[in-house]
Amino acid sequence: MSITLSDVQTAADRIKDGVERTPCRESEGLSRRLGTTVVVKYENLQHTGAFKARGALSRLTTLTDEQRNRGVVAMSAGNHAQGVAYQAQRLDIPATIVMPKGTPFVKVRKTTEYGANVELEGETLEDAAAHARGLSADQGLTFIHPYDDEDVIAGQGTIGLEMIEDDPDLDILVIPVGGGGMIAGCAVAAKGLKSSIEIIGVEADLYPSLTNALKQGHNPCAGSTIGDGIAVRAIGAAPLPLIQEHVKDVVTVSETSMERAVSMFLSRDKVVAEGAGAASLAALIEHPELFTGRRVGLVLSGGNIDARMLSSVLMRDLVRLGQVLTLSIAMPDKPGQLNAVAGICADLGANVLEVAHTRFAMDLSASAARLNITIETRDEAHAQLVIDRLTDAGFTIRIKNPNEP
Amino acid sequence: MSITLSDVQTAADRIKDGVERTPCRESEGLSRRLGTTVVVKYENLQHTGAFKARGALSRLTTLTDEQRNRGVVAMSAGNHAQGVAYQAQRLDIPATIVMPKGTPFVKVRKTTEYGANVELEGETLEDAAAHARGLSADQGLTFIHPYDDEDVIAGQGTIGLEMIEDDPDLDILVIPVGGGGMIAGCAVAAKGLKSSIEIIGVEADLYPSLTNALKQGHNPCAGSTIGDGIAVRAIGAAPLPLIQEHVKDVVTVSETSMERAVSMFLSRDKVVAEGAGAASLAALIEHPELFTGRRVGLVLSGGNIDARMLSSVLMRDLVRLGQVLTLSIAMPDKPGQLNAVAGICADLGANVLEVAHTRFAMDLSASAARLNITIETRDEAHAQLVIDRLTDAGFTIRIKNPNEP
Repeated sequence: MSITLSDVQTAADRIKDGVERTPCRESEGLSRRLGTTVVVKYENLQHTGAFKARGALSRLTTLTDEQRNRGVVAMSAGNHAQGVAYQAQRLDIPATIVMPKGTPFVKVRKTTEYGANVELEGETLEDAAAHARGLSADQGLTFIHPYDDEDVIAGQGTIGLEMIEDDPDLDILVIPVGGGGMIAGCAVAAKGLKSSIEIIGVEADLYPSLTNALKQGHNPCAGSTIGDGIAVRAIGAAPLPLIQEHVKDVVTVSETSMERAVSMFLSRDKVVAEGAGAASLAALIEHPELFTGRRVGLVLSGGNIDARMLSSVLMRDLVRLGQVLTLSIAMPDKPGQLNAVAGICADLGANVLEVAHTRFAMDLSASAARLNITIETRDEAHAQLVIDRLTDAGFTIRIKNPNEP
Repeated sequence: MSITLSDVQTAADRIKDGVERTPCRESEGLSRRLGTTVVVKYENLQHTGAFKARGALSRLTTLTDEQRNRGVVAMSAGNHAQGVAYQAQRLDIPATIVMPKGTPFVKVRKTTEYGANVELEGETLEDAAAHARGLSADQGLTFIHPYDDEDVIAGQGTIGLEMIEDDPDLDILVIPVGGGGMIAGCAVAAKGLKSSIEIIGVEADLYPSLTNALKQGHNPCAGSTIGDGIAVRAIGAAPLPLIQEHVKDVVTVSETSMERAVSMFLSRDKVVAEGAGAASLAALIEHPELFTGRRVGLVLSGGNIDARMLSSVLMRDLVRLGQVLTLSIAMPDKPGQLNAVAGICADLGANVLEVAHTRFAMDLSASAARLNITIETRDEAHAQLVIDRLTDAGFTIRIKNPNEP
């Protein structure tokens, strides 16, 4: 009851017509930025925008004819839903996907576009999973687990196989960890082909389930994270022993690192990563000492990020870099003051994005007003120049913390 | 004085060590969305994030040793600057890049990161070009033109060469047109390998320079466009006859189509395209009748788009799709009204993004107020439900046009 390199190779053969062999390339932009050689496996370019299409197909191709005819059921609010739906449609297998109530409509629509029957049931993932298990028992549908399944693990492991085949000089693979299926399969495959390679897992600070499992910790796994694809409370029973055998270590990454990684993939590499998909890069950003001087293979595991989230990550990154900042300016409530501020911004080429002017700020006297002005500058030095000129003109400036309301 | 397939093949050989052979792949997401087979050449994954690195290297590899030692000069506020700087650094050739004053700082920084000496000179592109020509004459630097040069054209043509080699079944290539270098080279190469292929050019509505040249038009070329990479007022003298000989037609695309195309590349294909880089996809969106039933090859020519622009394109697309909308609500200026509106939004799961409340709206009586509330909904039907419930509760609602201030 354990999988080996040859199981992954067999899975690779079973799925080869239904998955993309995604590019595995050195990223010149990221390597230059991070000062180490970064090789990326672009599973965001996989069918359905995420690696889950591999494991799903690996499992579906082991069904008997009778099981195929009866159909399959899965529970997921994310990429596994689309992976199963897409591959089932290709193979003409009826698929039911259970999603918790309140799942964003766009995810429901994408899954139904792949021909699956979607049922919205349960308030939580656990409730939805119980419903899916019920459907499996009542209607004889085969339950397709997202990670606690050896055929699924072998399918995800084909990512590791392809990486070592395409780039045998890799020293280390950095792989996001949710339930543990992908890292277990990749570790088996990569270690099987190249025993000297190191495998490092990455999880979100808020969901350190593998850290808990490997280091006998009891840290809570909870909270809202940009890495929702890896927000899993417990490592699967099937992947855990494989991880214990083959994985060298696991690190956690902050929300900020994942946000920066999403932004860096966009600006430096010109690709879209979801939060969980960018976790490997976040590990390089947050723990650079583990990777310097080595040829590092990152799995960009998926690119399914909501447009509004992406938009907000981009703006927050500009704020973080000091290119967008809000100045809070106390000024006498008399004509011409806004014009004076606007004139200085215009003179210096600072772009005004948002203005709010209030007379009700309680920290000021009744005859004063507060102007909050959000500007875009070229860089921090340019921002400082704007602040200096405003101060010279007699205004009292405070830089608003981006986290203030 | 004209180039042929063999010139492009020779250029391909000269540049093969210094450029990426970028992926050329069928995009399942775009094909599904547009109902035709879409193959994309991902030049956003080229070194420097754009195809210009090809033409630059093609030209630099034809320099004599003496020319190399003296160095080169180019004028560009965009991708050509980075292409020349990057390749000159690789070959150890001194490079001076002239950019007009006011060029965004991030473009200056990226170019200096590639080791070039950047001079900010001139108010307009024309002034900057004159300065660069002056440097060329005074200091004996070789001027590297972005498109009006046969070695550059042959270099850009390697894109067409690779596309036909990788996907010989393509029926049609759709290529953005600025100065005409890329389309001229690609047309020569693609037609040379496969005479039946059709080449279609795409330009921005605001800069129809090829349309003017081919159809004896005199439409103005001016204005601010998201496709700044193809905002060129006149086709080069070298590419024009090649285009006249090999290109079947040219179409123009609106700003809205380019914005939608940028957004579609992000959401469906998980890659970043700049406005000009998305022009080919914009042509499919705006002129679908030209492409149905055919195997269409698009050149995604570059991915260098400003983070704030990208963020704004994403939000504007959500507004366009009805997923983000602003309701303007007239209401009695008395306590509890905002709470009533907020309660209905919360009940229905509409996410409130922005609120502005004013008592000074002149279209209302002095005892009324106006609330502008921006909400995010699942889709148009969900938005309508929110509007209906607010109307039932006695509020008068107007949907604000996204273009209103």
